[in-house]
Amino acid sequence: MTYLDNAATTAVCQAAAEKAVYMMTEAFGNPSSLHTAGITAERELTAARRAVAGLIGAPAEDLIFTSGGTEANNLAILGGAAANHRVGRHAVTTAMEHASVTAAFDELEKQGWEVTRLLPDADGMITPAAVAAACRADTALVSVMTVNNETGAHFATEAIVAAVREAAPRALFHTDAVQAAGKLPLKAQKWGVDLMSVSGHKLHAPKGVGGLYIRRGVRVIPRAVGGSQERALRAGTEAAPAIAAFGAAVTALPPMQETLAHYTALCDRLIAGLSAFSGARLHRPAVHVPYIVNVSFPGLRSETLLHFLAERDIFVSGGSACSKGKQSPVLQALNLPTAEIDSALRISFCHTTTETDVDRFLAAMREAVDTLTRVAAFRHAKQRR
Amino acid sequence: MTYLDNAATTAVCQAAAEKAVYMMTEAFGNPSSLHTAGITAERELTAARRAVAGLIGAPAEDLIFTSGGTEANNLAILGGAAANHRVGRHAVTTAMEHASVTAAFDELEKQGWEVTRLLPDADGMITPAAVAAACRADTALVSVMTVNNETGAHFATEAIVAAVREAAPRALFHTDAVQAAGKLPLKAQKWGVDLMSVSGHKLHAPKGVGGLYIRRGVRVIPRAVGGSQERALRAGTEAAPAIAAFGAAVTALPPMQETLAHYTALCDRLIAGLSAFSGARLHRPAVHVPYIVNVSFPGLRSETLLHFLAERDIFVSGGSACSKGKQSPVLQALNLPTAEIDSALRISFCHTTTETDVDRFLAAMREAVDTLTRVAAFRHAKQRR
Repeated sequence: MTYLDNAATTAVCQAAAEKAVYMMTEAFGNPSSLHTAGITAERELTAARRAVAGLIGAPAEDLIFTSGGTEANNLAILGGAAANHRVGRHAVTTAMEHASVTAAFDELEKQGWEVTRLLPDADGMITPAAVAAACRADTALVSVMTVNNETGAHFATEAIVAAVREAAPRALFHTDAVQAAGKLPLKAQKWGVDLMSVSGHKLHAPKGVGGLYIRRGVRVIPRAVGGSQERALRAGTEAAPAIAAFGAAVTALPPMQETLAHYTALCDRLIAGLSAFSGARLHRPAVHVPYIVNVSFPGLRSETLLHFLAERDIFVSGGSACSKGKQSPVLQALNLPTAEIDSALRISFCHTTTETDVDRFLAAMREAVDTLTRVAAFRHAKQRR
Repeated sequence: MTYLDNAATTAVCQAAAEKAVYMMTEAFGNPSSLHTAGITAERELTAARRAVAGLIGAPAEDLIFTSGGTEANNLAILGGAAANHRVGRHAVTTAMEHASVTAAFDELEKQGWEVTRLLPDADGMITPAAVAAACRADTALVSVMTVNNETGAHFATEAIVAAVREAAPRALFHTDAVQAAGKLPLKAQKWGVDLMSVSGHKLHAPKGVGGLYIRRGVRVIPRAVGGSQERALRAGTEAAPAIAAFGAAVTALPPMQETLAHYTALCDRLIAGLSAFSGARLHRPAVHVPYIVNVSFPGLRSETLLHFLAERDIFVSGGSACSKGKQSPVLQALNLPTAEIDSALRISFCHTTTETDVDRFLAAMREAVDTLTRVAAFRHAKQRR
């Protein structure tokens, strides 16, 4: 199997799967229970918190676990806005965010907030200056992702935070770092972000766990209420198997410099291979990560290509998995021609991706383009008759 | 190990753990992905939905998965109230609910709702008549649990629904069935409830998954927004390993009649054994399930007893796990003397609990009472000197 859809989700690594099994069958106590069975489980949560917090440059106490990236993004935006609305009811975000950010801002608009949604510049980028320019005296919340999930655009979070601090000192700053965590160095505390979201299943932990860094002193209004788990910021019995596995997956990640070099080699190989396709249109923002590549083959539909590749056990995606076949708002924000949006493929790597995977994809694409172009030409000719 | 804290959480069964591993390492695709890796995962979710819905007497299409019982209860109450507020802003619930229900109603009060919280009668029960009597023309939501998590009180959900339909025909009716699912026959559709919450980890599935039955035609306002997962009622990549394991755990449950007979035998044995303790005070509501027993030993503190038992690898709880050492509001609602609340133990069974477990608990309790009473008497004497 050639799995090149790691921005959608990843396979759970051995260490994480084993930890989940241990939690399910041995350390199965309720972390809130006062007896030793509960304390053993609680200890595993603490270890996982330390590992995940360490990955994003945060103190362990400032990270809470959620059911995933969506819940983390929802809590950061809706909970942050609810806590900080005295500053004003204006928010700034981008038109390139994940659906769970976009939809949270839609909710704020329903609640009477005004939301500025920045379009990327001609280079596919959101610049610190553009974010700062959108800030106002009544801006209470700014949310700009670190890495875009479709184009791989890599925004300068540290510089954006600094610019926002200057332009809107009382605004909360959130970044969705789901597509960056585990692949790029993140420094939540050092950069001074207030809120940072991460997700387990993008880095070889199971689906069903995410995390939200909440800088000390920053208030968010909880959205899950009941027990006092996660410092009463997120009630509900902790998903202990997934959380502990999240920690194990982080601990099992190879050194970041090594993987970045690996991604760069794979990316160069892929780009070089794609340059042989005369019709291919690469969508490369000015600054991008080497593990997400977006390319269109105008005239061929994404879905047709996906199926063609899947039949050969090669998996990539069209837009993001979450958009499920709808036109990608991210590619629309880039103002791409419809023919390019409809034929876009996203290829995304993980650290176990090999050159053979890239080569298999390129060979299958060659076959796809030859076959499907012929089919399209034939249909076209038939229609004309 | 003698684990008698199954109302707090359960060990994950073999079948569920294996299914989770399969989902983590083989069927790891994103269920929203359009390729076959996604479709394989999606198919597992469908199978799990059928199994869990079957368990509670609901059509599969009317069940959505959540991150647990807390999220299901929050969504039912806050999402249901938000959708049905045109009927009025009055709600009815009980003073015996789980913290995730209680806290959700606290939220509604903050939003300006009036909430009637019914106290149990002298028998520890909430009757259909009492619920009906609390209903008004502007009652938009009623939530009464099916089985209480601390006393094992078993409320007549079917009759309560009927009474509410008469008294407040436009109100939504929700029941938290977390402590009933898998142990008692549930008929969500037949009983006519609008919303029913269940949790995986109380029936040998992993922590991190729950379900909410939403009767066809009933509207709830989503609280997790983003992707269109779970019919857009609960956004976020599905916790596929936990969900599929939930289905597997349900499928692996032994026949209900068999386990009920087993629980009854264990319960009788436990009650008979406890009758030998002169100081023990049983808290038995008029109608109760045979798998949760609450008993106090006035003069001894729950926490001391828990530790004494845990040192012998015997696990029970004081109040619910979620109250984490705080005085149980449920026992307070029963108007018990403080000495009984402070010394309460909850013993709860699962289908793998044995008579030996009960006997070990009783023997350890005998030892505890003898030892700790002596210690207490000694301390008391010392203080007097």
